[in-house]
Formats: sequence, structure tokens, C-alpha cells
Amino acid sequence: MNSSSCTPHLPAWPHQAFTAPFTTTGRSALVPPPPWHYAGWLLNVSFQFDAGRAVPLVPPAAGRPLGSGCVHFADWQACTPNGNELLDPVLAQYRETIVVLEVERPDGSRAMYCPAIWVDQDISLVRGLLQGWPKKIGSTWLTRSLPLDHPAAAPLRAGSRLGASLAVKDRRVFEAQATLTGQPGRALGFLGTPTIGAVGWPDLRQPAQRPTLALVKPAIGERVGSGWHAATATLQLTPHPTEDIGLLDGLVAQEASAGWIGITVSGAVDA
Amino acid sequence: MNSSSCTPHLPAWPHQAFTAPFTTTGRSALVPPPPWHYAGWLLNVSFQFDAGRAVPLVPPAAGRPLGSGCVHFADWQACTPNGNELLDPVLAQYRETIVVLEVERPDGSRAMYCPAIWVDQDISLVRGLLQGWPKKIGSTWLTRSLPLDHPAAAPLRAGSRLGASLAVKDRRVFEAQATLTGQPGRALGFLGTPTIGAVGWPDLRQPAQRPTLALVKPAIGERVGSGWHAATATLQLTPHPTEDIGLLDGLVAQEASAGWIGITVSGAVDA
Amino acid sequence: MNSSSCTPHLPAWPHQAFTAPFTTTGRSALVPPPPWHYAGWLLNVSFQFDAGRAVPLVPPAAGRPLGSGCVHFADWQACTPNGNELLDPVLAQYRETIVVLEVERPDGSRAMYCPAIWVDQDISLVRGLLQGWPKKIGSTWLTRSLPLDHPAAAPLRAGSRLGASLAVKDRRVFEAQATLTGQPGRALGFLGTPTIGAVGWPDLRQPAQRPTLALVKPAIGERVGSGWHAATATLQLTPHPTEDIGLLDGLVAQEASAGWIGITVSGAVDA
Amino acid sequence: MNSSSCTPHLPAWPHQAFTAPFTTTGRSALVPPPPWHYAGWLLNVSFQFDAGRAVPLVPPAAGRPLGSGCVHFADWQACTPNGNELLDPVLAQYRETIVVLEVERPDGSRAMYCPAIWVDQDISLVRGLLQGWPKKIGSTWLTRSLPLDHPAAAPLRAGSRLGASLAVKDRRVFEAQATLTGQPGRALGFLGTPTIGAVGWPDLRQPAQRPTLALVKPAIGERVGSGWHAATATLQLTPHPTEDIGLLDGLVAQEASAGWIGITVSGAVDA
Repeated sequence: MNSSSCTPHLPAWPHQAFTAPFTTTGRSALVPPPPWHYAGWLLNVSFQFDAGRAVPLVPPAAGRPLGSGCVHFADWQACTPNGNELLDPVLAQYRETIVVLEVERPDGSRAMYCPAIWVDQDISLVRGLLQGWPKKIGSTWLTRSLPLDHPAAAPLRAGSRLGASLAVKDRRVFEAQATLTGQPGRALGFLGTPTIGAVGWPDLRQPAQRPTLALVKPAIGERVGSGWHAATATLQLTPHPTEDIGLLDGLVAQEASAGWIGITVSGAVDA
Repeated sequence: MNSSSCTPHLPAWPHQAFTAPFTTTGRSALVPPPPWHYAGWLLNVSFQFDAGRAVPLVPPAAGRPLGSGCVHFADWQACTPNGNELLDPVLAQYRETIVVLEVERPDGSRAMYCPAIWVDQDISLVRGLLQGWPKKIGSTWLTRSLPLDHPAAAPLRAGSRLGASLAVKDRRVFEAQATLTGQPGRALGFLGTPTIGAVGWPDLRQPAQRPTLALVKPAIGERVGSGWHAATATLQLTPHPTEDIGLLDGLVAQEASAGWIGITVSGAVDA
Repeated sequence: MNSSSCTPHLPAWPHQAFTAPFTTTGRSALVPPPPWHYAGWLLNVSFQFDAGRAVPLVPPAAGRPLGSGCVHFADWQACTPNGNELLDPVLAQYRETIVVLEVERPDGSRAMYCPAIWVDQDISLVRGLLQGWPKKIGSTWLTRSLPLDHPAAAPLRAGSRLGASLAVKDRRVFEAQATLTGQPGRALGFLGTPTIGAVGWPDLRQPAQRPTLALVKPAIGERVGSGWHAATATLQLTPHPTEDIGLLDGLVAQEASAGWIGITVSGAVDA
Repeated sequence: MNSSSCTPHLPAWPHQAFTAPFTTTGRSALVPPPPWHYAGWLLNVSFQFDAGRAVPLVPPAAGRPLGSGCVHFADWQACTPNGNELLDPVLAQYRETIVVLEVERPDGSRAMYCPAIWVDQDISLVRGLLQGWPKKIGSTWLTRSLPLDHPAAAPLRAGSRLGASLAVKDRRVFEAQATLTGQPGRALGFLGTPTIGAVGWPDLRQPAQRPTLALVKPAIGERVGSGWHAATATLQLTPHPTEDIGLLDGLVAQEASAGWIGITVSGAVDA
């Protein structure tokens, strides 16, 4: 999406790859074309912070940070329409930690913007970059709620405790601890508000330039949920030497929810 | 459990560690003392094979292999009684692949014996060795069934497909693919039959000796289940240069089931 | 580099990020701008194969496959000019397996083209995609030669044995075993021949389109070497369900070399 | 090494396994019998601390802590006498972080005692427990010095900078930064002083008991070195919720050295 990309290109070659490597079969492409189906278990913790701290993180065209946001710890299963990834689940499963910040769009509407996200599988990393989710590799852990009455099961009832953590390059960045209240919860963060991201690619033939950006939001097809379960939560952010998310140091947890959701993404639109 | 251990020992020191490192707080011990609570999601695939092939894998005192067994792919959450591991789930969660073989005990009774098991966390590895589960590190992937009607959710209903795999030192050893039938399933393998294991530790002061072994079985307290869901399944075993489980090459899948179970282990008894 | 990128863009925002996430500091960008310094230990094994098998892997504009290639197993250390990554080496070190195939360019010259490469760090993955190295995540292991006369050191002398392996999503793809001859070796593969790659990014706003590609080759600055050490080698390729490199099944190892090399990349040029 | 191990055992069975799993071939045993050959690159940083803080970490029979110690960051290659692990290096290579504390033995002599160590491979983990190295899994990174004059090579000369880190369960515990002085260095820590460890195994049939311990030191055969290279260093210890090594908080780096060493261990003796 750099202006240099308007220069002449390789003569057309009927490769079938959506992303590299570019082969005629397309079979090896890291990311297949959409639609992409995702289903997962999430712990969502909303937070407030000094809005001014987020200015370096959000392009003005995306909006003005309002001082609220959400971190989502997610344990996903994803597949393409034939579902074959579910038969070899190393291709389907990943965990990630997503940060979204609430913004006021230039037109006065509200949206979420994603300034940071970390995942543990390459497929999801590149699939995310294409959607404006600025993914890097990170290690997410997230307690699951199992349908059992047992001390290790964290069942969906008042008093069950859940934990979550994110580490980036061997350093903890986020830690959350939550206790289910037994009440219904809310669709926090990107689950309840349209979310936009920035896409851009540098061109190594002009290495002194920074990429120009396009703002996009996902085109979402099917969406199903199990209902959200409310929780009280604590959230700790530890600044990291190479992660700007540390600028939000001092954030304060607001409310939390946990549950399952299924989403299908068919592409993106301008935001 | 080597005879050399009957020689004089270190004067008693009131350390509180159940396993190394041995400190007075016991806080750093890799494994805390039981009880240990486990809850997880499992895919179980029973199989048959030429019984003679298992002779090198099973101590005669454990029993005579009968030519049947089960592989369990498990996605666990475990904790001690205070449940704190669930608040920092890197301490609680692990995945493993368990192989058990049916034997006729010397007294004519039936049992399962565990000749091989691979896990992805150190805590579980050493906790297993203490119980006679001969754990090594391996990478297990296992499709989860989520309570959603969505293409990536593999919900608990007829036709949902699940996959599982084990790799050891970067080589695939087991792969299974299953399709839920919508019918109730059975408690296969270690889930339905008492299971014994061999415990022994070499003494480096006598490095030419092999350890003498004790046969034990777990002392199980609480046990809860969600009911098993039947599946048809295929199972593939690929021989591995350093894994004797390859001796079972040619095994044939019989029946399969999936579901959640919670177990509490309070120690072990002679088997 | 898709034609859609010629449409209007986000108003300029003075972010400093070379890649996502796009922040004004640029500190969090997964990849900093070049120059990039690389130094590493490599085992290189050249091979021959039926040239026709590579047609699906190589864009005609890159050239016509000639039936020869090289696999490089590499253990790298990389940094930016201030060298700070060497003080926190999780940011600097990675291992990768590189495949290059010899092609005759449309102008009759010879070059290498990279159809596949797997690495174990996110920084290198995206940095590679920008250069036309179609990186995905994989697990590479590579014996190192240490300057010691010891059975575990594999010192640089005749008879020392080295091994290497690549696994992708828990399956072995390449395995090599080499024995040093004590003679000088050659700069094989990308080490001795200019190497080109294909760069392209899909645009999710037009998800039915495949990206148009640009062919580039790196602009290399400093380059230093320790001299190559010849080896005899075996090479085994195991087809993988999602990797087109399996099309080269039946390849035959030719010659091998090992040694250290340092390279500095300052950008890319059209190829 | 628990007293319970003096009770009757399983009738002898001619298994050949040094450690679990116990099969007649012994091929699958996680740890083969010694001798074990190790060769590696190490960064050693000695430190001082308030001696009283180490009392909970050191059995009195091992000695009285003197307030000095050393942390070693090591990048090893290990093999058995046939060297086959070097041909499949996932079996040979691992990284670890070793802490040793200087003690005055009851007889007045000086020794080192190992209260904590973290490694990234199962083979080394269990092999260490047998030697009284209380290994758990941890992630170690360590800059390597390559024989090149290049910005990413950290060659062995004055001014080259090296970094190292340890993370345990996704939390940084140790970080070191070193600058080579160009002068010869010293054999610090376990490299220059006999080192003892505590071995013990709980018996799950008596789960309320803590294991009695034996103190051992390795029987070392061959030992070769490349000479140590002196460095100045900083060392940071961050307390960790489950690691008693945090008791040494406030430690101060003294001197540092880096280099290669090869060692062969043939067993252990009482210490």
C-alpha cells in the first residue's frame, strides 16, 4: 500500500496464493483467502486510563482516544470453510491478547482502534496484519471454564476464578485475575463496538520511507455467542522495553466478562 | 528406590520441598505434595494390536499384554487445593498424550499399564514420573468442542469432527481424526480400568546399575465427569527413532469417545 | 503492492514505524528499518532434482528452474546499527531453513530464487516477507562446531559430524547429516549466487484477488566470511501436507559446506 | 532414596532403561546411562549477596553460605559416546541458567552448592535431577561470540557486548549484560570449584513425607577449555512468585568471563 506499488509489476502469473509463498497451487500460502471462521473462549477486561497517553498509539484519522479500552485474552480455534484445520489442530488453534482503545471518529461516532496484539501462531499473525491487527508473537495463557463441578474446572458460576497473562519476548506485559459473579456480562471491547485497524507495508526499495496507511474494519458474516458471564477483575500492565503499550501504565480495570463467541470474517472495508 | 538408598543419608533437614529444589520454604519445588486436582477435555481412541509386540514394553509383574490399548489426547487444567494455579494458568494448563495397554495381572485380573506418555510442562512431567507415568516432553494438539453452533466450534453433536496429534522431538508419532456420532460413548482406557505404572530412579553413584522398579497405581479421590460422547476414529502411529511405542506399528483403531473429566489424586498405592 | 494501493490513503501521519504497529515512536514496530546486520553459522547442502517439478514454485519472470538448488540450515544473530539486540538476545537470535532453486533468468543469466523458508522468530518472519523470502514459522536444529577437542564439540576438522533438521507444524520436512572432509568448501546456494524473491500483499478489501508480485533482490553492504569447510552430506525431504516443497521429492544431495558468515542488508532493488 | 525404598520391590526384570520408560530395549529411556559428554559456550557472572539470605536455600550438611555465588548462562551440546545425538541435534542442544553459591563445608573446605537451575529440554532436566542439579524448565537466551569481524558477531575482543536472560513461566528472572575487556578471564563458579547438589525423590505411597536427601558431586572425566575471556558485567535479579532464588534480591555482580568448555561426566560420588 506504498505509492511505489503503482510502478510496473511482475507480469501476471496465475499463482493461487493469497500470501507468500506464491505458488500455482496456493496450497502452501501461510494464509488462505477468506472467509475465515473463528470460535473461541475469551476473558475481556475493560479499563480506563489518561486519554492523553494514547495519542502516540492512534492515528488521528482513526479518531481521538477517549481514555477507555479493553484487553481480551482469547483461546481460538479457526478454520476455512472445509473445516480441515480442525482435523489437524496445530493449524487451527492459537491464543492471543488483544488491546483495543475507544476513539471518537472524526465524524463523531464511537469505535475501537487496535494499537497492539500478540499471538502465538504464524497463520494468525499474518492474517491479522492483513486486517489491521498489528500482531506480533506473544505467549498468552488463559484459564478455561469446563462444564464440571471440580476444583480445577473453573465452572461458569459465581465465585469461579480465572487468570490470564501475556508475555512478550519472555517478559510479562499483562496479567489479569477475575472472579465470576454469576450474573450476565456485557460484550466489551471489540465484541460490542466496531473496531478499526491500520494496514500498511514498507517497500524495501525505498527503505527511508514509512508506509502510508489504510484504515479498515472487518466485514463480518456469521456471529454467534453463548452469552457473556460477568466478572470482577484486576488488571496489571508492566511496561516492556520495546512495547509502546506501556504508555498506558496506570490503567485501571473497570468491568470484565467471559464466554464463547464464533465469528466469520469475509474481508474488510474502508473505515 | 534403588538398594543404594538404604545407605546412610544426609542428616535430617527440615526442608519443605516435595521435589527439587529442596528449600526450607518448599515454595520453589517443581511439584507440590498431593492432593492434585485435574480437570480436562479428552479424546480417547482404543486400538488393537499384535499382543506379542508389547512384551518389551511391559514388566511381567505388571501383567501380560492382551493386544488392546488406548491412546488419550488430553488438554488439562490442574491445581492444588488453594486453586492458585488457576489465577496464573501457565502453572495449571498442559496437554499430553497417554498410551495405556490392557494387561492380565498375575492374579488374573485386568488392568491398564502405561508404557509411554508425553506432556508439555515440567510440573506435569515430574509429577507423572512419581506416579509411574513415564513422561517425556512432547507436543500434543487436540480440537476442542465449544458450546456454539459455528463452523469452527466442533460442537457436541453428530458429525462434528475432531483431530489430535502428538509430536516428539519435532516428529509426528500419533495422529487421530474422529467424528462424533451423537451417541453416548464409553470410558475407555485409563478412564474405565485401574491403571498401573512403574517407578524407579537410578543412582548415579552406581551408574552401571539399572533401577529396580515399584509398581504403583494412583489413589483417586473425587472423580466427576460430563459423560462421554461416542465417535468413530482413525489412528495413525508413525515409528520414531527413539520411541519404543513404534513397536505397536500396525495398530488398528477400535472405538473412540470424547468429553470432560475431573479427577483428584491423593497419592499412590502398591499395584 | 496491489493495484488497490493506488487509491486514496489515510492522510499522512508522522508515525515512525517501519512495520505494524504504527506508533509515533516507532519503538514497537516488529521490524525496524534497515540496515540489518546478520552473522551466523550455516550448514549448506546443494541438491539436484527433476527441474520440471519446480515449475509450480517459480514465477516465470523469475526464471526457468534448472534442476539444482540448495538448502541452508542457519543459526543467526542479527541486530540494528546500535547493536542493542545483542544485549537482549531474544531479540537477536533465530534459526531458519532456507531453500533456494537455481534459475535461468529471462536474460540468460543465472540466479537463485527462494520458494520456501521457515524461521522461529516473528521479527525475522516479517523482515523476510519484505525481502521476498516467503517465511513461515518452523523449527530448525543445527549442530554447531565449537573450538574444542571434545566428543560433543564437532570441531572444524575431518570426520566431525553435523546434523540438521526442519519441522513445520510438528512434522519433519528436511533432515541432513554431514561429515566434514577437512578440505575447503564452496559458497553454495544464496551464498554464492544473487538470490531473488517475490513480494506481494493481498488487500482484504478485494479478497477475491491474488496479489500482484514484485521481484526483488537484497542490497547487500558489508559481507565477511570465515571460509567454508567442505562436507559430504545426505539430505532427506519428507513431503508435508501443506508444503509445496514436497514437490521436490526425490532430490539428491550433491555437495555441502559449513561455516560462519556476516552480511549487512541495506534495502532491496528490483530483480 | 526414601527409606520406603528398602521395602520389597518388583521382581527383577531385565529392562535396559536407565530412566523411565522402562523397556527391555532401553532405547526410549529419557536419559541414557553415563558417560555424558557436554560442550558449550558460557557466560559466567559472579556475585555477592547478604549470606544470611541463602540459609533457606542450602542444606546445613552442604555447608554454610558465604555470601558469594555465580550465575552461568550456558548454550550446550551434549551426546553419548557414539555421538549420534549430534546427527539429530534436537537431542543434543539445550540452553540453561545455573546458579551456584559458595559454601564452607563442615570440614572447613570450600565448595559450590546448586540451589536452582533452569533448562529447556527434558533430557537435561531429568539428567540434572539425577546429579543433584534441581532443574526446572526455563527459557535462557545468550549472545554467542562468532569468529567474524562483523557488527552482529560479538567477536572475542575488547568492547564486544554480550547479553543473557532467563525467564521462568513467562517471567524474566535474570538478566545480564557484559562487555569483553580483551583480557584473560577466570574459571568462575562451578567451573573453578567442586560443586555439590542434593538428590532425593518422594514416594507417593507416603505422600506426607518429604524426601531424605543425598549430597553428591559429579565424577568428571575429560575436561577441555578454550580459555576464559574476562568481561565487566551487570546482573539483575527480579523476584518471581514461585522461585526462592528471589531471596538473593540485592545481589551485586562482581566479575565475569565467557568462553567454551567441554566436560565428560561418568557418574557421581558422595559429597
